[in-house]
Amino acid sequence: MEDLEINKLVVFGVGLIGGSFAAALKKADKVKHVVGVGRGQENLARALQLGLIDEATNDVALALRDADFVLLAVPMGQMAPIFSQIAPYLEAGVVVSDAGSTKGDIIVAARRVLGARFSRFVPAHPIAGAEQSGASAARSDLFIGKKVIVTPEADTDGMARHRVAQAWSACGAEVISLSATQHDQVLAAVSHLPHVLAYGLVHMIAMQPNAEQLFEFAAGGFKDFTRIASSSVEMWRDICMGNRDALLHYLNAYQLQLKQFVGFLETGDAHAIEAIFAKAREAREQWLAKKI
Amino acid sequence: MEDLEINKLVVFGVGLIGGSFAAALKKADKVKHVVGVGRGQENLARALQLGLIDEATNDVALALRDADFVLLAVPMGQMAPIFSQIAPYLEAGVVVSDAGSTKGDIIVAARRVLGARFSRFVPAHPIAGAEQSGASAARSDLFIGKKVIVTPEADTDGMARHRVAQAWSACGAEVISLSATQHDQVLAAVSHLPHVLAYGLVHMIAMQPNAEQLFEFAAGGFKDFTRIASSSVEMWRDICMGNRDALLHYLNAYQLQLKQFVGFLETGDAHAIEAIFAKAREAREQWLAKKI
Repeated sequence: MEDLEINKLVVFGVGLIGGSFAAALKKADKVKHVVGVGRGQENLARALQLGLIDEATNDVALALRDADFVLLAVPMGQMAPIFSQIAPYLEAGVVVSDAGSTKGDIIVAARRVLGARFSRFVPAHPIAGAEQSGASAARSDLFIGKKVIVTPEADTDGMARHRVAQAWSACGAEVISLSATQHDQVLAAVSHLPHVLAYGLVHMIAMQPNAEQLFEFAAGGFKDFTRIASSSVEMWRDICMGNRDALLHYLNAYQLQLKQFVGFLETGDAHAIEAIFAKAREAREQWLAKKI
Repeated sequence: MEDLEINKLVVFGVGLIGGSFAAALKKADKVKHVVGVGRGQENLARALQLGLIDEATNDVALALRDADFVLLAVPMGQMAPIFSQIAPYLEAGVVVSDAGSTKGDIIVAARRVLGARFSRFVPAHPIAGAEQSGASAARSDLFIGKKVIVTPEADTDGMARHRVAQAWSACGAEVISLSATQHDQVLAAVSHLPHVLAYGLVHMIAMQPNAEQLFEFAAGGFKDFTRIASSSVEMWRDICMGNRDALLHYLNAYQLQLKQFVGFLETGDAHAIEAIFAKAREAREQWLAKKI
């Protein structure tokens, strides 16, 4: 198969992810022209100024003319409306991808709206930090060494798959293919659930009558544990709603875990508590050792 | 009251906390002679080599002769046995303090063993990170800007309280007085519970049939969230057992929090989920703003 060369890349949502994708492809010399589309004029102006994009517009028809690669890097709630907007203007041969955190719900929406063009859509999810946001946070090295999960369907076009994988590889990422269901289950366990647990702890403490005193003595461990509870509220609401079934599955497993722990604590079973902690600590150390 | 001057400080457990306490008091020129007592000969030798202590011994009677300040900085499980060991040798005027993470249970143990000498015991808890351990991790600046909670009882000697507060102040810490019950409740909420939740998540994932795949896609958010699940297993087992009632209270509150969240997710109440996340995020941001 030929080397990746994108003539016209259209990025919907030139924020941390969309802006970094454009910047990385530019740096790798894989794209000739980048058009940014978005509702925030100020952010688009900044993206132009930073050289992340070459052109900014809100005219979808104009943006998609002669485009050969389209990336949707917008909040989950905007994905379906944008699929509807772009559907009439998708030319033959254009490849569409996204950077959404859940995949099953996006595939349902894309299939409904794109019809026959669905085969040109390659769902993807770059697993890269997203605490900062906006074009100013974009950087060409954001994806280096990071994982990008692509979740093609049985009817996804092979060449489209190949081009999307090439694009993320050119950004320095490791591209891994999973089914959408696998993706959503895995991310529910190691990303969505921890976010819910962190938000939940801070919320529970904030609702206590002596919340101010409790926060006064919170220290470094609490700070790290709850860092993800400073994430975007809208983004995580959408992720929870979009991945409801898998999240409920692991929330149930976690509730059982806590119930078991409470039982051990109530009966004073120090040995069982030690066994849980030891297993967890060992598993985390093994994980860290592999990650490095 | 006169300035703090310790002639002979005896530190049981010359690890991160005990070693740093000795180092800080030496640097502040508040102590003339430091004796380290501990079971680990290698660690004591290292403490001597590093100048944290001037003398190392396992002879408790010898260590306590003419001592005027005794710090117990050992794991919670060793506190009661050491109280028993030192009780016969505590001379009049000596001040005893500890650095344990729970206070109610230590007070019960100390009261039982020390008898009339209990009034010279000032329970304390420096809230300072404890990921590294051993004498090698000790540093004189560990407590600068950190909080130390002292939990004197009604019958605690006023001069002993004063000397303990002076010592921690000399280490650069902010000394705050709470009742032991208050201390144990506050720490259960903002420290002990998060540890249980983090250990619990890693344990739950490690027990899944596809644990390897789940860990493969765990990223930065998971890493920070679970950092405290790499803490000492024995230490946290003892803390959980020592602060059982308060921990069970907040575990119950947290289980209700999760149950409520699951209900919102099951009924698809995106608005309620957003409200929880928004309240949590706002509370955390306010906490961070005050901390700085």
